[in-house]
Amino acid sequence: MSDNEHAVLTLRNLIFDICNQNGGGHGGSAIGMAAIGVALWKHIMRYNPSNPDWFDRDRFVLSNGHCAMFLYVLNYLTGYEAWTMNELKGYGSAKENGYTTLAHGLPEIECPDVEVTTGPLGQGIANAVGLAIASKNLAARYNRPGYDIVSSRIYCMTGDGCLMEGVALEAIALAGHLKLDNLVLIYDNNGVTCDGPLSWISSEDINGKMRASGWHVLDVLDGCHNVGAICSALNHAKSLTGKPTFINIRTVIGVGTNTAGTAKAHHGAFDAESVARSKIAAGQDPSLTHSPSKRGLDFFRERKEQGEVLEKEWQDLLLRYTMEYPEKASDFAFRSRGGKPDLRSLFQSLDSKQLLGMPTRESNGLILQKIWEAYPSLCGGGADLVNSNKFLYSDNDVFHPSVSYRGRYIRYGRREHAMAAISNGLAAFHPGTFLPVTATFLMFYIYAVPGVRMGALSHLPVIHVATHDSFAQGQNGPTHQPVELDSLYRAMPNLTYIRPCDAEEVVGAWMWATASTDGPTMISVARDPVDHVSGTSRSGVLKGAYVLEGDTNADVTLVSCGSSLHHTIRAAQQLRGEYFIHCRIVSCPSFDLFDQQSEEYRQSVFPMDGKPIISVEEYVATTWARYVTASIGMKSYGYSASNASNYERFRLDPQGISSRVKQYLAFLDARDARQLGWRSI
Amino acid sequence: MSDNEHAVLTLRNLIFDICNQNGGGHGGSAIGMAAIGVALWKHIMRYNPSNPDWFDRDRFVLSNGHCAMFLYVLNYLTGYEAWTMNELKGYGSAKENGYTTLAHGLPEIECPDVEVTTGPLGQGIANAVGLAIASKNLAARYNRPGYDIVSSRIYCMTGDGCLMEGVALEAIALAGHLKLDNLVLIYDNNGVTCDGPLSWISSEDINGKMRASGWHVLDVLDGCHNVGAICSALNHAKSLTGKPTFINIRTVIGVGTNTAGTAKAHHGAFDAESVARSKIAAGQDPSLTHSPSKRGLDFFRERKEQGEVLEKEWQDLLLRYTMEYPEKASDFAFRSRGGKPDLRSLFQSLDSKQLLGMPTRESNGLILQKIWEAYPSLCGGGADLVNSNKFLYSDNDVFHPSVSYRGRYIRYGRREHAMAAISNGLAAFHPGTFLPVTATFLMFYIYAVPGVRMGALSHLPVIHVATHDSFAQGQNGPTHQPVELDSLYRAMPNLTYIRPCDAEEVVGAWMWATASTDGPTMISVARDPVDHVSGTSRSGVLKGAYVLEGDTNADVTLVSCGSSLHHTIRAAQQLRGEYFIHCRIVSCPSFDLFDQQSEEYRQSVFPMDGKPIISVEEYVATTWARYVTASIGMKSYGYSASNASNYERFRLDPQGISSRVKQYLAFLDARDARQLGWRSI
Repeated sequence: MSDNEHAVLTLRNLIFDICNQNGGGHGGSAIGMAAIGVALWKHIMRYNPSNPDWFDRDRFVLSNGHCAMFLYVLNYLTGYEAWTMNELKGYGSAKENGYTTLAHGLPEIECPDVEVTTGPLGQGIANAVGLAIASKNLAARYNRPGYDIVSSRIYCMTGDGCLMEGVALEAIALAGHLKLDNLVLIYDNNGVTCDGPLSWISSEDINGKMRASGWHVLDVLDGCHNVGAICSALNHAKSLTGKPTFINIRTVIGVGTNTAGTAKAHHGAFDAESVARSKIAAGQDPSLTHSPSKRGLDFFRERKEQGEVLEKEWQDLLLRYTMEYPEKASDFAFRSRGGKPDLRSLFQSLDSKQLLGMPTRESNGLILQKIWEAYPSLCGGGADLVNSNKFLYSDNDVFHPSVSYRGRYIRYGRREHAMAAISNGLAAFHPGTFLPVTATFLMFYIYAVPGVRMGALSHLPVIHVATHDSFAQGQNGPTHQPVELDSLYRAMPNLTYIRPCDAEEVVGAWMWATASTDGPTMISVARDPVDHVSGTSRSGVLKGAYVLEGDTNADVTLVSCGSSLHHTIRAAQQLRGEYFIHCRIVSCPSFDLFDQQSEEYRQSVFPMDGKPIISVEEYVATTWARYVTASIGMKSYGYSASNASNYERFRLDPQGISSRVKQYLAFLDARDARQLGWRSI
Repeated sequence: MSDNEHAVLTLRNLIFDICNQNGGGHGGSAIGMAAIGVALWKHIMRYNPSNPDWFDRDRFVLSNGHCAMFLYVLNYLTGYEAWTMNELKGYGSAKENGYTTLAHGLPEIECPDVEVTTGPLGQGIANAVGLAIASKNLAARYNRPGYDIVSSRIYCMTGDGCLMEGVALEAIALAGHLKLDNLVLIYDNNGVTCDGPLSWISSEDINGKMRASGWHVLDVLDGCHNVGAICSALNHAKSLTGKPTFINIRTVIGVGTNTAGTAKAHHGAFDAESVARSKIAAGQDPSLTHSPSKRGLDFFRERKEQGEVLEKEWQDLLLRYTMEYPEKASDFAFRSRGGKPDLRSLFQSLDSKQLLGMPTRESNGLILQKIWEAYPSLCGGGADLVNSNKFLYSDNDVFHPSVSYRGRYIRYGRREHAMAAISNGLAAFHPGTFLPVTATFLMFYIYAVPGVRMGALSHLPVIHVATHDSFAQGQNGPTHQPVELDSLYRAMPNLTYIRPCDAEEVVGAWMWATASTDGPTMISVARDPVDHVSGTSRSGVLKGAYVLEGDTNADVTLVSCGSSLHHTIRAAQQLRGEYFIHCRIVSCPSFDLFDQQSEEYRQSVFPMDGKPIISVEEYVATTWARYVTASIGMKSYGYSASNASNYERFRLDPQGISSRVKQYLAFLDARDARQLGWRSI
């Protein structure tokens, strides 16, 4: 038996044990992929088990994240220090009482040698596209003849499930368009899904589809055993240029067991007889579990030393590069340690008084443009609406080989979901090396929800610029009016959702977004001109909510944000002028930031004195109920008509607001508003 | 000039006027598509302007919905009664003060001859796939030799934007797999996007991609002028069987104007000179607007009479069919008028006592199975997780030509977004003729959000079965634990989100879902066994929330739903037994249904007496703030470990709940809980 054959069995036998220790798992595909694992980890990929964070490593993404144990076992076998046998035994439930294990049910980015969190299908493929863009971009910026200091290739493993998901199909099309020849997508083509044969749900010519999408396509017919054939294909892929490469590898799910080739192999435990047979074939004692042979272990562990040599060679190259190109090298060092420019003076120079009255999408566009110039890690773009998003860029800053891979502006096309998921990959390349920006209408971030969530869950800083919030859609109607989407984004942990009302608050939103290193920010801006509001404050934004107009004799507090704030202020003017009702005004651009403030501060903004506090927003109002005693908001979708007529129709114009406030105050009749419970008025 | 050439100009000239009346619109593509419009509306489609709802009409879907005026102008020209010139003049803002116009910015299903609401790109293609499935299924069920009483073909118009969206790519793959040869997708290939040339964002071989996806592909090279060539392709498509057909038609955006072929033609108004030239060419007076020539109008209006003849022929056929197959015909008549079976005795026969302790995903599966048998309009399936969803079906009930198109079970594959959007198409085929069902994990409905929203916005009854809510994921971890997704679905207007706690409440959920005719329902169920809870009530579900355990001396009300309710009841037992704290328990499976109850009823469930009311749920708790004084919920994502350890870790197990309740009561110290404002505890 060759070393490769033995290594394949070593890998499989450990997967058998990890899977069977809990009576099941997602072992079948991992078993079928073992030879691919040997090829990648032993023969192909550049990485250093002693330093999982080595900058110039190749990146591996397990898009079919449910096969997590494939990755974990390879990490153990190749000698990642953190990946002990005890960690592997923690897969499933064994270590849960102590609440810590690396071997989560699905790979999580927090763990060494896990590049991105995967599991929700299709996301990993888009993440890999982001990683490939990152590597290409840095290579174009920093490499010099003889000095390929950035040479990471991206390997992404996929099953049939990922290849059915829209997000993957969008990302695949874009990768082809961008000609990302540092990206290899490896298809574990086992022909079996969760529910049954793949032929039940798919009959496409996947190779034809990939070719038509601008990819090289290679086939490997015996992916279960022939490590050499897989290496040939992977090595050949290195020589192919001008396109990403898709390698279609035929495998057998649960190969060598009594459920081989069936959907039963997808989840279940493996039969003892097959496991024993496999262990005997590898010279292992079938009565022992979790006991790879010395031969198998030595074979994989050679990669530990090789990895150290690889990184050492790269460090030497970097040293020579530093002598030859000291300025470039200093820049690279700054970038690769996640250095951020000091933006304080830039923010100080942004005078929102010069942007008075300007629609927030426009002031936002101008501010983004200035930050873009000052902050080289910013990169990204919009989903075919950038003229409307006001995301300005110069044609020679476009990321495309027809321009240059040095460009930072990515034309995502009408692919919102992939845009968000690709941005996660960009942010995950190396902490702080990229700060991705996306842009589209707020309503169309509904297409990107799963990608935005994965970024938040993975603590990846990405800035989402959502324009055309509110009714300001130009007659597009309810399909474009996001009355309920904020409810999701405001509830999503680790995402900071900010809805500024004017240029001053937009500055505050960007101060937060550029400083945040722990998760994404969504900045929601509007299409229509805004009123001049005195007292808005960038530092107030950082507190989430603040008093805009105080009044110790106030009869009522009105709180709002974004476009609605302007209607609210006008309503307050009516209430004061016509009805002598004293109004206090609170601007609340971000619930997420407000909730982080002290209770004392929060109660200073929303006092617990029983006086009425009314929120006003052209969205479904239930998100406000935790702060206020009553809400003016939407209970239905909007209507296809001009902005003004929507505000009027739904009584969210100053007249409608003021009359509802009056009615509520009359209903309260000086009673304690909190005691009567929250109401939608 | 031929009649066709003249008709093309007639159409364009009216579009010019509609667009220019507001200084812009989305006219450019509509202008470029004019010859396609003449081919379809004059020569190809079967429809009857005098009866837009004629059952056996061909269906047309404008997936590139922003070109709405294309559809509106054709509706006017062919003589739809509702589509007067005044309606066309209402496009944009002209009629907004009266709040009524048919000519919305985007096509809306409520209007005659608008099959589905479109605008968010890609949705229409998936809707068209649903319509094609509907037609195929009915044809297989009801047609007999010589009696093709169902023969609707589906024509869907698309631009490049839709063809980039994941939802469309998923639906295209499924349509190819299902071999829907009654579906024609017409690509307005004008090579220009919102932002610039299509080549900026796409370089795929779209024809190759469609062929690889199992579609016939036809090309038309001059799509702006050659009506005959377009008709040839469309007629040829009728003869092609075994696959859907994609017709790639090259057009020029804004053809014949001074912005022709550029992104400027996408939105803007058209130059007067070009418009005048076009009118003169058609023999129209260039000084007049909204004035099609008699020749043009007569040419289109012939379709009115022809449509009446077509429907008459079909009515005659139906009459003969009724005589030949009276039983089938009676069934068809029932189905085609949206008849529903009387399910009362079925629901009465469902005895939840026989399902005690059963995980709700399983009791839900059994109940669905019984309703499926009793309700022939139910159709649909799951996204490759049906063994986990417990959506049981028989192999010979599968919708696929290899089995039969009579089958009602659709194997959607791993295409959640398309599944939801296709279901909208099924529901839109004819009111009540289909009641679509979808299924996947609750977390994966995050992929389907835009489709679910479009169904809710369009008032289409669809039943979404969301299993594996809560932490009960089997170690899949936070990527699979939907801590915040309910915030969206509970806020989404017209969607009824129901989270039952046991089989009895599952029955209630289905009573609502099968009775609803006005929008979708999402039933959220769990994987793990449930406790026996006495007092749960199906009729209580229909009220949204109800008192499960009353106590006039209660110190505190605890409210919960789904899996969390069981932990809550156990916590209440501890509080009573160990600390003599009297607890009242409320079950609240649906906010949407509760909010529809009278204020009196609502206050009977959640009294305003200042006593504490605490919600408990393993989701982000802010949705509850409108009802309660304090909430126990999630503020972060969950953790990858067993269900039990997640409940323990996040203090949502009985012990954690009871200790938090105690702590809150101690903090209150008999003070008025409402006065102190809502808290997360």
